[in-house]
Amino acid sequence: MSASSPANIIIAYLGPPSSYTHQATVDSFRAPKYTLRDELSIRDVFDAVQSSSASFGVVPFENSSNGAVLHTLDLLIDREEAFPDIHICGEVFMDVQHCLLGYVSQSFSSDNKDLQSSGSSGSATPTSSIPFPKEPRSKPMTDLRHVKRIYSHPQAFGQCEAFLSTYLKGVERHEVSSTSKAATIVAEDRDKSGAEAAISSRLAADVHHLAVLAKGVQDVEDNTTRFLIIQRGPVCHDIQNLLPEKFQMTNGFRLKKKALIAFNIDHGTQGALANALLVFKKHSLNLTSINSRPSRIRPWHYIFLVEVEGEREFDDPDLLHLALQELDTVTEGNKWLGCWVDRFGVNAGQ
Amino acid sequence: MSASSPANIIIAYLGPPSSYTHQATVDSFRAPKYTLRDELSIRDVFDAVQSSSASFGVVPFENSSNGAVLHTLDLLIDREEAFPDIHICGEVFMDVQHCLLGYVSQSFSSDNKDLQSSGSSGSATPTSSIPFPKEPRSKPMTDLRHVKRIYSHPQAFGQCEAFLSTYLKGVERHEVSSTSKAATIVAEDRDKSGAEAAISSRLAADVHHLAVLAKGVQDVEDNTTRFLIIQRGPVCHDIQNLLPEKFQMTNGFRLKKKALIAFNIDHGTQGALANALLVFKKHSLNLTSINSRPSRIRPWHYIFLVEVEGEREFDDPDLLHLALQELDTVTEGNKWLGCWVDRFGVNAGQ
Repeated sequence: MSASSPANIIIAYLGPPSSYTHQATVDSFRAPKYTLRDELSIRDVFDAVQSSSASFGVVPFENSSNGAVLHTLDLLIDREEAFPDIHICGEVFMDVQHCLLGYVSQSFSSDNKDLQSSGSSGSATPTSSIPFPKEPRSKPMTDLRHVKRIYSHPQAFGQCEAFLSTYLKGVERHEVSSTSKAATIVAEDRDKSGAEAAISSRLAADVHHLAVLAKGVQDVEDNTTRFLIIQRGPVCHDIQNLLPEKFQMTNGFRLKKKALIAFNIDHGTQGALANALLVFKKHSLNLTSINSRPSRIRPWHYIFLVEVEGEREFDDPDLLHLALQELDTVTEGNKWLGCWVDRFGVNAGQ
Repeated sequence: MSASSPANIIIAYLGPPSSYTHQATVDSFRAPKYTLRDELSIRDVFDAVQSSSASFGVVPFENSSNGAVLHTLDLLIDREEAFPDIHICGEVFMDVQHCLLGYVSQSFSSDNKDLQSSGSSGSATPTSSIPFPKEPRSKPMTDLRHVKRIYSHPQAFGQCEAFLSTYLKGVERHEVSSTSKAATIVAEDRDKSGAEAAISSRLAADVHHLAVLAKGVQDVEDNTTRFLIIQRGPVCHDIQNLLPEKFQMTNGFRLKKKALIAFNIDHGTQGALANALLVFKKHSLNLTSINSRPSRIRPWHYIFLVEVEGEREFDDPDLLHLALQELDTVTEGNKWLGCWVDRFGVNAGQ
């Protein structure tokens, strides 16, 4: 059966299973219509879609606290031209609730008095560099003094600073490739001494039989990750029709739509970047974000990625064509990375 | 003796000793006039300068292949208002030559034939996702089959993909806080089995008594990191005079100057970002780069950091004042992060 047969639509996502990307994918693409397949890296998801071994791919794009996922930006820019046909066709927002996972130490678990006196008072310690530290949003459910090493993804560490600096100050951090990988490492801790803990998802605790030592350890309540759905080729109704209805681009509806465009400019021309951005303004495409990445052709030259939103422009190919034509005249090169229905404020499961 | 006494000017830099930041600092601030002090984190360098325990700080800002150092951007944005007085007053460019450091395995070292047959042919393997992989720029100086784990900073891993995917494909990677920390870990490998290796500086090999297993393992020849020098307070001649002459801001000279400005906008106003960038164009301040970071006040709202360059504008406080006044009218808030002499094309040691 081919990957694009309606009965067996394959969705590649950034694994391993129990990753946040997995959760976003499960919520968007329901069985039995879709078959989900985990991939080892974001690049592997791009590869699966480019080679048509999957119809769609799901990758993390941006976190509301920590910013863009640079690796995804680099793959979209595609300096090596390995993914010429990849286009974005949808987005999924998902609340991220980090947990501290590990083992409960028998020697400390009933000794809450000592927990207090050991400096873990539950309020972040002011220092000269952080005179008004953020208060952690949650408390540990058990003593954490046995924890000597924490594993997580760098983005997750960045999202849990208040909790870590209050309850796990000075504890060694090991950055690994994903939050689910972190849980795997801790689950493999053979003597179960409890010296190792992971910041990972609630789902990972079940999958790896780990104890939840603390819930909701992220700094801000509203910690949302945005995922992109990618497909092969630009908006193409043959493929679009395989998507769940909520992601399909339909003409005429007054839905807000978004697009991502990459371009580079002649850095020697004064005002070149402002000129490029003016094109979007002129064509009523509101600029909602901008990122820059090194071009890797010349040092200190950049490729810019801009996200724009609008209504009428996306429904009228002529209007869009005009805007892109004008962009050609003020950039050294540009690439259309796809457009999709704005899903902001709509959770994955809805 | 106070930190600002000319005979004992303290420079805080991101350590540990033998880090690339250390190298950039040594080359710029020569003994006996300056006393260098290593700090554990970029935040600690900011803290030292804000609290006046150091006159200047040196921190990494951007790499020519890998882009901005997000942690430095976040500290400059200073959402917590912990560093209200920090301003940039200089920049240093430094070539980064990564080395693979570790131990030479006695059992493999003379067995080059096997090295060839084990798939490490010296050319990167084409895959469907990378049909034309970058060729590694250098070859290992010894067999690497005994290497089972590599330690380095995530940025350094990102800069050495061709070498790693050719000669150390599938070897476990451990991301640590700095390249010098990576060398420290490998040096502590007690049985010297050679299973651990680090991507670090040539200087770190000497400091930690490690063998250089390969030199220049980074993907591109031109791999340069830009460091910022920070001081307390905006351009202030009392402090500026303590800087080495090459970094001092002097009026009248036809030196190109740069400045960094952070601002946020009303995301609901169409064209708000383009309007803000137009102000710089109007005042002949050429935009050379732009980065965005989450505001962390509302999700999907950003703080933008723009770098501008010009000549006349920086020498005439009135012209600059006009530009900033106009920026006030089109942004929700903005922050001047300092200006400095453009040092592009001038190496640290010169």
